[in-house]
Amino acid sequence: MAIVLGANQYGKAEIRLLHISRDDGSHVITDLNVTVTLSGDLAATHLTGDNAAVLTTDAQKNTVFAFAKEHGVDQIEDFALRLARHFVDSQAAIWFARVAVEQYPWERLGDHTFCRSGREVRTAMASYDGRESWMVSGLRDLTLLNSAGSEFWGFARDRYTTLAETTDRILATAVNARWRHAGPLPPEPGSQRAVEGGPGWADSYRSARDMLLAAFADTHSYSLQQTLFAMGQRVLEGRPEIAEIRLSLPNKHHFEVDMSPFGLENAGEVFYAADRPYGLIEGTVTRDGAPPPGKAW
Amino acid sequence: MAIVLGANQYGKAEIRLLHISRDDGSHVITDLNVTVTLSGDLAATHLTGDNAAVLTTDAQKNTVFAFAKEHGVDQIEDFALRLARHFVDSQAAIWFARVAVEQYPWERLGDHTFCRSGREVRTAMASYDGRESWMVSGLRDLTLLNSAGSEFWGFARDRYTTLAETTDRILATAVNARWRHAGPLPPEPGSQRAVEGGPGWADSYRSARDMLLAAFADTHSYSLQQTLFAMGQRVLEGRPEIAEIRLSLPNKHHFEVDMSPFGLENAGEVFYAADRPYGLIEGTVTRDGAPPPGKAW
Amino acid sequence: MAIVLGANQYGKAEIRLLHISRDDGSHVITDLNVTVTLSGDLAATHLTGDNAAVLTTDAQKNTVFAFAKEHGVDQIEDFALRLARHFVDSQAAIWFARVAVEQYPWERLGDHTFCRSGREVRTAMASYDGRESWMVSGLRDLTLLNSAGSEFWGFARDRYTTLAETTDRILATAVNARWRHAGPLPPEPGSQRAVEGGPGWADSYRSARDMLLAAFADTHSYSLQQTLFAMGQRVLEGRPEIAEIRLSLPNKHHFEVDMSPFGLENAGEVFYAADRPYGLIEGTVTRDGAPPPGKAW
Amino acid sequence: MAIVLGANQYGKAEIRLLHISRDDGSHVITDLNVTVTLSGDLAATHLTGDNAAVLTTDAQKNTVFAFAKEHGVDQIEDFALRLARHFVDSQAAIWFARVAVEQYPWERLGDHTFCRSGREVRTAMASYDGRESWMVSGLRDLTLLNSAGSEFWGFARDRYTTLAETTDRILATAVNARWRHAGPLPPEPGSQRAVEGGPGWADSYRSARDMLLAAFADTHSYSLQQTLFAMGQRVLEGRPEIAEIRLSLPNKHHFEVDMSPFGLENAGEVFYAADRPYGLIEGTVTRDGAPPPGKAW
Repeated sequence: MAIVLGANQYGKAEIRLLHISRDDGSHVITDLNVTVTLSGDLAATHLTGDNAAVLTTDAQKNTVFAFAKEHGVDQIEDFALRLARHFVDSQAAIWFARVAVEQYPWERLGDHTFCRSGREVRTAMASYDGRESWMVSGLRDLTLLNSAGSEFWGFARDRYTTLAETTDRILATAVNARWRHAGPLPPEPGSQRAVEGGPGWADSYRSARDMLLAAFADTHSYSLQQTLFAMGQRVLEGRPEIAEIRLSLPNKHHFEVDMSPFGLENAGEVFYAADRPYGLIEGTVTRDGAPPPGKAW
Repeated sequence: MAIVLGANQYGKAEIRLLHISRDDGSHVITDLNVTVTLSGDLAATHLTGDNAAVLTTDAQKNTVFAFAKEHGVDQIEDFALRLARHFVDSQAAIWFARVAVEQYPWERLGDHTFCRSGREVRTAMASYDGRESWMVSGLRDLTLLNSAGSEFWGFARDRYTTLAETTDRILATAVNARWRHAGPLPPEPGSQRAVEGGPGWADSYRSARDMLLAAFADTHSYSLQQTLFAMGQRVLEGRPEIAEIRLSLPNKHHFEVDMSPFGLENAGEVFYAADRPYGLIEGTVTRDGAPPPGKAW
Repeated sequence: MAIVLGANQYGKAEIRLLHISRDDGSHVITDLNVTVTLSGDLAATHLTGDNAAVLTTDAQKNTVFAFAKEHGVDQIEDFALRLARHFVDSQAAIWFARVAVEQYPWERLGDHTFCRSGREVRTAMASYDGRESWMVSGLRDLTLLNSAGSEFWGFARDRYTTLAETTDRILATAVNARWRHAGPLPPEPGSQRAVEGGPGWADSYRSARDMLLAAFADTHSYSLQQTLFAMGQRVLEGRPEIAEIRLSLPNKHHFEVDMSPFGLENAGEVFYAADRPYGLIEGTVTRDGAPPPGKAW
Repeated sequence: MAIVLGANQYGKAEIRLLHISRDDGSHVITDLNVTVTLSGDLAATHLTGDNAAVLTTDAQKNTVFAFAKEHGVDQIEDFALRLARHFVDSQAAIWFARVAVEQYPWERLGDHTFCRSGREVRTAMASYDGRESWMVSGLRDLTLLNSAGSEFWGFARDRYTTLAETTDRILATAVNARWRHAGPLPPEPGSQRAVEGGPGWADSYRSARDMLLAAFADTHSYSLQQTLFAMGQRVLEGRPEIAEIRLSLPNKHHFEVDMSPFGLENAGEVFYAADRPYGLIEGTVTRDGAPPPGKAW
């Protein structure tokens, strides 16, 4: 049986770019980590080392920097989509491009002074196949904790089950969420629209993020799965431009310390924050009848 | 349009287990990181917080430890498969289980003394749906470097291409490889066979690993893609029990330092080892007519 | 010549503790990483394995949890000092204790809901030798950036100097600062005073932190060294209870991307954020005539 | 009271350098991480931003690369010392230089092919004040485990002590060791001598490392402190050129999993490898009457 090349892709990962907009007296900074991934007619470089179809990953890096200069950055969705379209439209051998962007948040301290906020990282992932575009927005590392309103009981029991039921536990997680915009995306990048006729990327992001926070805060939880679904549902109910959301929620365990050996009673006051292992709860919440995802993910 | 639950899964991640076999005078240690992922009839916990179908992630952790006691560990493929089968076969609500194991290598210094080798981590991922099983073996973080025998030229050029062609560059990567066994897997875990009638897991792993090293070493490379294909091809040619291999190869750039400002000529002697960005080359090599992957990945 | 035991210490590192104060309707959470280090009459355990003088690191961990229950946490300086005094005063063999605490900041989203801020980590390090106490407060990972008001020129030049002078560069750093309180510390832990008759720990911290930010923002900088001194000076001028401050400032390089190969001019808009190598500027600013540091560091 | 500048230093950290020696058919690679730290007459740059005395950290980086070209690297002690002497001897304002080098080990797979070993990192730290030189060699991240021959009992007990005594535990650590050469160092770098008339750096390192391994392996341990002293003693007894050794040994806890709830007996077979907290045992072993350390550390 012949040995053949299967699916393949290549690109430049983790291009760290800082853009400063100096248009007015007060600077605006945008701090990004950009990863480009391309696929297409690339059998030759794999099979014979003929690189005629290979746009170098060095050129991809240069393009990211040059586009920041030529077009600015502004919303990362627009920036990612502009790059994805460029690579496919300008390179005959490239049939599909995906550009993933992470944006690190900074707070303004002055006209030219900024403090990096370690809060959530905003993300965007644009995909383009020469005809259609897809957009996934999201965030990661949004660490949340409820010190009340979380129970966990009534679960299955087998020979290896020793966990005690509880009606009052700490629920903590680091939210990793990505949501797919229902499209159609605006025909031109830079239009600042999440979907045609819809809100802007910035509004869409901020609102989705706030809904995730609010749903985590006000859901009385019987399982992290229930909280996950509530978070996804909240976003889909509130943001019609979003078709689907995928959540990955580590259960950051906080174990109540047993103080009975010291003659003390720990009434939910002192906890050990564990590193590993951790529960990992992952799920998709989607809108019935939403347009299919195509190559969005 | 209704908002509905889509694909979901849960489990315990990164269970750090050390197993000591004391069967004879000389101990054998096995150092693992185990991640369990389950899916099935889990709508209730998401929608209402009814956890009757939820085998707790704490019990999953306990099971991993208990199975190490009851059955030993030995080859990680067997250990992973035994666990995957257990969760599906013993829990009515669980339809699919995946158990991923990382094994950290240790070198023996004495009967009871060991030194951790930081070389590659061996991996295995067993999947089971109640009827069929799939096995993916692999390794990660095998860092290799060729200081000769690597060229890169003849690539596409566009407005943003500035990279110089070279007929002598450093080629370095950290191999991340996973390969799918063609099956059928042996009906019982613990049989120590990679596939029915085939070699053992240990032999299969060691041989595949050695072939990756050999192909990296003796391929005169015109692109990292070419080296990737050669590595995959070597494994498939040599190991009939393997149907498909997926490689993810970061291009760990080493840039020759320009010493002309100091009046020195750098004849390929001094390089700057860059962190980011890095090229990332990913591809699959497969056997034409191999059995379909099913739920292996 | 005889081989002898020199300086030695031991303890439990990185005890991760979450404390919840439930005194009123609105919870208060305190998220800590505590490291205990003890030294004293410990030759026997080193030389013969006689552990009679060894308070186990496990007991040290238990003590940290128990003290959080018995005394609460509140200001980390008080918590650290109470623990340090306990270990020396209760163990005859222990002559010196140091307790270092890191506090991770959380923002309140609701009565029982919190979001972890990734901003700076607050630190405290209490030392006690059975008679005297010393306190060092501080912060780390406060990442700051000035996009204007930073120059670097007029530096020494040697054969290996190629750096261009600049009158407009980005200045970015991650502030790591520790400052010593001049004492005398209050005789009893829990008094909430930074020094006797002085402000509280919380006020002292908040004010010192704000002064670091302000000095970074409003110093027109000719070198990161100059900014370092200005930051330290600002704190010492404003906080009489602080005798000395030590700053460690990595120079997080942002290199302007050369776009001339693409026919573009980069007017300070697009920068590459480098990982390694980085400049590292470290210095102490002190008050002339301040009390000696003793065993504070 | 005046506010004054205290101790200060600056330099370039983490210069990642790969050197290839192509002298004969078989290449030799040396993979380093170099950190330069300088101090001297640097008040002006702190107080006024006058940089006339500042050798830029960029030039320091260039010097590291250029010296690798001009002199080769070979033993990291020689390389570090040559650099330290250069900075002080060539810059009037620089009175003290310290150059710290980490060397990542690679195994040879062929004439031009190498595989990175993740075993211990070799380290060297050279210090020079214009008259005298000091050398500290060492290693870090040498992870060792004894599955027999370790006890821990007879320790102090207080109200918070709950740990059970044991006559059979796992002892695991990641050795971080640094040792000071007694000097006098050879007058010229590149002489390949650890001390005048003594062995070469390579032999000295290899032998010290082997002695650390051997002492860990064959010491029946009643405490990690005892093992620490035995390791240091072994090195000092065997290597007359070494005056002092400092060891930092995390106690990498492995807890035996309690399987009684599952009706199983765990006879020292299955352990949970914990991340945090961990014990941290640190100590110095020295030769009575050794020359004073001066500015070695």
